Amino acid sequence: MRESLVAAAFQLFVERGYEQTTVDDIVALAGVGRRSFFRYFPSKEDVVFPDHEGCLAEMTAFLRDSGPTHEPVERVCDAARLVLRMYAENPAFSVQRYRLTRKVPGLRTYELSVVWRYERALAEYLRGRFTGRPDGTLQADVIAAAVVAAHNNGLRSWLRSDGRSDATAEVDHALAHVQRAFGPDSATHGPAREPEAPDGGRDDDVVVVVSRRGAPLWRVVQEIETMLARDPD
Amino acid sequence: MRESLVAAAFQLFVERGYEQTTVDDIVALAGVGRRSFFRYFPSKEDVVFPDHEGCLAEMTAFLRDSGPTHEPVERVCDAARLVLRMYAENPAFSVQRYRLTRKVPGLRTYELSVVWRYERALAEYLRGRFTGRPDGTLQADVIAAAVVAAHNNGLRSWLRSDGRSDATAEVDHALAHVQRAFGPDSATHGPAREPEAPDGGRDDDVVVVVSRRGAPLWRVVQEIETMLARDPD
Repeated sequence: MRESLVAAAFQLFVERGYEQTTVDDIVALAGVGRRSFFRYFPSKEDVVFPDHEGCLAEMTAFLRDSGPTHEPVERVCDAARLVLRMYAENPAFSVQRYRLTRKVPGLRTYELSVVWRYERALAEYLRGRFTGRPDGTLQADVIAAAVVAAHNNGLRSWLRSDGRSDATAEVDHALAHVQRAFGPDSATHGPAREPEAPDGGRDDDVVVVVSRRGAPLWRVVQEIETMLARDPD
Repeated sequence: MRESLVAAAFQLFVERGYEQTTVDDIVALAGVGRRSFFRYFPSKEDVVFPDHEGCLAEMTAFLRDSGPTHEPVERVCDAARLVLRMYAENPAFSVQRYRLTRKVPGLRTYELSVVWRYERALAEYLRGRFTGRPDGTLQADVIAAAVVAAHNNGLRSWLRSDGRSDATAEVDHALAHVQRAFGPDSATHGPAREPEAPDGGRDDDVVVVVSRRGAPLWRVVQEIETMLARDPD
């Protein structure tokens, strides 16, 4: 019932346009009554994003079930991957919705409020993990925003390829960027994720970096990353 | 006229609540006709955020007038400061609106769409500046999101203090966090902003960092920052 309402709605949105389609049109095509529609969806907008509530609940549970050994930035990146999975499970639907959302300002606004709820869930988790750190809430908010922006950048690349590129690779690449900027190197949090240094170097090897004082910090970091062979790009 | 409509609207929002106030109520209190209201504001929501369109236009012009010598991350931080200035110019109004926005979900959604437009303006500028860089659009999107999150973190601290704390200091502190994470050190982009090294060191001084290979990257960066005495916190 729920699926057939979504299917009928999207068929009409594509044929007639979103604004020109009423709930009555949708229930007529799906062959059900208005009350059935509103049992599943509070409004016409909700039928466009039928899985976000479930995904938000899943993300919240995933973060709640985190332990103190989970590296926080890695954990929120993994939480963001739950959203990607929802999109990637149904590429045709996701691509169709992407096109629709770009055309209808009301849907774009609705989507922003959903994205904001994901971002708040990530930020709340990080705030908890960063309790007692100087600037803990600031760091939490900035990292949550960066993770969401990176995830959405990767997701949109995939959607713009009409679902033909590798969604997981796109998002992994984007999230790795955030992890490099903010995450403690995963090497300190579990050997399973530690890339082998090219010379077989061990954790207690000493690395020396020499830099001009005037060099921009990002250049210095880039040099260090290269030396540590930790940049997978 | 515009100001008296805003004043009448807020008086009623506070007295009766936002949802219970109609445009008719507002124009009656302001002593003008409905058409005057809609000449200034497309909807009741717009009267809550009367200055954002102007601020967005100002930000767009500010970014458009940037030159190639402007350090891009610093430039978007300065662009974000234009938003702060708008809030800080009218503390009582900003605090009142903050309380209202938190209570009314429709206003919260409206605000999200405004914030999104600021973020897109920053991201578009950065995308232009990062053209040809590997992952330029990804970097642009992540930095824009981080700048907006940091700005809003500082802004909210100030709003929660009922406008009593130092708005500029709050936001400067938050933005400095993003500049440390993403900005090339400002030392390479203008001596006016370069803090004097404690030993009077010059740009072409050589800095040596020794680190264990297993140390998390953020710890290494922290050490470098401390050595360079470029961390104002």
